[in-house]
Amino acid sequence: MYDVAIIGTGPAGISAALTLKLRNKNILFLGQESLSPKIQKAHLIQNYPGLPAISGEKLQKAFTEHLAQMEIGITSDSAKMIYAMGDYFSISGTKQSQPYQAKSLILATGVNAPQTIPGEKEFLGRGVSYCATCDGFFYKGKTIGVVAQGTESIEEIKYLAEIAQKVLLVADFAPDQHGFSLPQNVHLIEEKIEKIEGSQKAQKMVCTSSAFEIDGVFILRQNVDLQVLVPGLACGDGFITVDKNMQTNIAGCFACGDCTGKPFQYAKAAGEGNIAAHSACTYLDAQKQALQQAKN
Amino acid sequence: MYDVAIIGTGPAGISAALTLKLRNKNILFLGQESLSPKIQKAHLIQNYPGLPAISGEKLQKAFTEHLAQMEIGITSDSAKMIYAMGDYFSISGTKQSQPYQAKSLILATGVNAPQTIPGEKEFLGRGVSYCATCDGFFYKGKTIGVVAQGTESIEEIKYLAEIAQKVLLVADFAPDQHGFSLPQNVHLIEEKIEKIEGSQKAQKMVCTSSAFEIDGVFILRQNVDLQVLVPGLACGDGFITVDKNMQTNIAGCFACGDCTGKPFQYAKAAGEGNIAAHSACTYLDAQKQALQQAKN
Repeated sequence: MYDVAIIGTGPAGISAALTLKLRNKNILFLGQESLSPKIQKAHLIQNYPGLPAISGEKLQKAFTEHLAQMEIGITSDSAKMIYAMGDYFSISGTKQSQPYQAKSLILATGVNAPQTIPGEKEFLGRGVSYCATCDGFFYKGKTIGVVAQGTESIEEIKYLAEIAQKVLLVADFAPDQHGFSLPQNVHLIEEKIEKIEGSQKAQKMVCTSSAFEIDGVFILRQNVDLQVLVPGLACGDGFITVDKNMQTNIAGCFACGDCTGKPFQYAKAAGEGNIAAHSACTYLDAQKQALQQAKN
Repeated sequence: MYDVAIIGTGPAGISAALTLKLRNKNILFLGQESLSPKIQKAHLIQNYPGLPAISGEKLQKAFTEHLAQMEIGITSDSAKMIYAMGDYFSISGTKQSQPYQAKSLILATGVNAPQTIPGEKEFLGRGVSYCATCDGFFYKGKTIGVVAQGTESIEEIKYLAEIAQKVLLVADFAPDQHGFSLPQNVHLIEEKIEKIEGSQKAQKMVCTSSAFEIDGVFILRQNVDLQVLVPGLACGDGFITVDKNMQTNIAGCFACGDCTGKPFQYAKAAGEGNIAAHSACTYLDAQKQALQQAKN
């Protein structure tokens, strides 16, 4: 059981991790080990105080070095489903079958609001899944569609290919160009997905010029819709609703950075990460005290 | 008329200044040119993302270089009274007789809540003043007490000595050790101030073992009580009340950093400064638009 799970390795998550480490918390830091790709893409950042006119690449390097110097490791995985269990959170990732568990949660997922596919939300949990590890098992020996966004999904595709009889893959990258030689039962469909159709459950994956009968569809993307990721999370205008302490509507769950809204800025994200970390510590202290009082 | 006046040169004010400069705003950046003394005093800062294990001295140097590189100047003065005039703010400093004027205001004054002297608030505006430049004139040829905290007050003491007939000085520093040879009409009282007494107005300055009849008392400290500094400003528990956009209860007035409350952290302060700057830009845009519409 971790003290705090941080979801996302952008400036907000990094800032939260640094402060929690200083406060001796046992943290799960989930995200890309190479940090948020958005940092590296920035050309020139002029208003991150103390690091004048820094390139995205150099800022990323500075963050990486800071994490290394504080001995903070990143668990290279992405959260697919997070459930508030009362006094802890259960976090399903893609890399291990057992969910991670943490007493508190800091969401630092960034702003990438995913474009959903028509039918995706309608059939979610009824043939549509975001999590190979969580739901792959149900499709043993069946035919599944896989919509893969980003090469981070390669491991999950391999895992699904081991379980399913047949995998119909729609990917936004060329597998062979990323050293991924498709297993024999994976058929690459070189079209775009248009919609998911069905009646009681998802039954058909409709692409640009053909349609495929399927038993289920896995949509593998890095960013899951926030309210799907954390059922019950209050959002407004696509952003997580937080108060000044970065507290969300769920006890023990905090949010920071671009996922809480504008301005989309490094300094703002780092500042909110710092606040969220302090709020998580306050929450953990109160939880510990309540448990001790219950014992007496 | 400045677009934005920033009060305070700590990390929050610096962050706001950098962003406003990027946004082409005409700023008044009021505070100590050597930046907030609190930064330099910090031994080791471990959780300012991107600058691992940095000393206060080095962080201050990094901030100074960043301001220089962005060609941001500091006006070495301290705000004593700020009035919201509707569509602009009037800011009385200590270095010039005319108040500064700015369309919007960012308070980044830090956390130093001043200890008030018994009688100080009671007689404020009735014989007690914080501002030599604003009120010195009223004491021409009279006897005044001056309670000076910090060597930054030396210029003001000199100014008051030029106006008043007699100055009774209680200082928390030894003037001669700071190259300040007292004017002939300034009498150094080597005691501590206990209280200010009077009936309709302040009449007596009571020190540890003696008391002095005075016509008025000037209390010269770097940090003025926030609600005295900005009449009408909403505060709670000694901190400025702000929303998530760092907006205070006064239109066009924003606050950031330690003065808005815990956690007292560099990253938090810098993040809030960034948000306050963006909010000020939004406010200025709306004000401009409203003025144009009024013209048409």
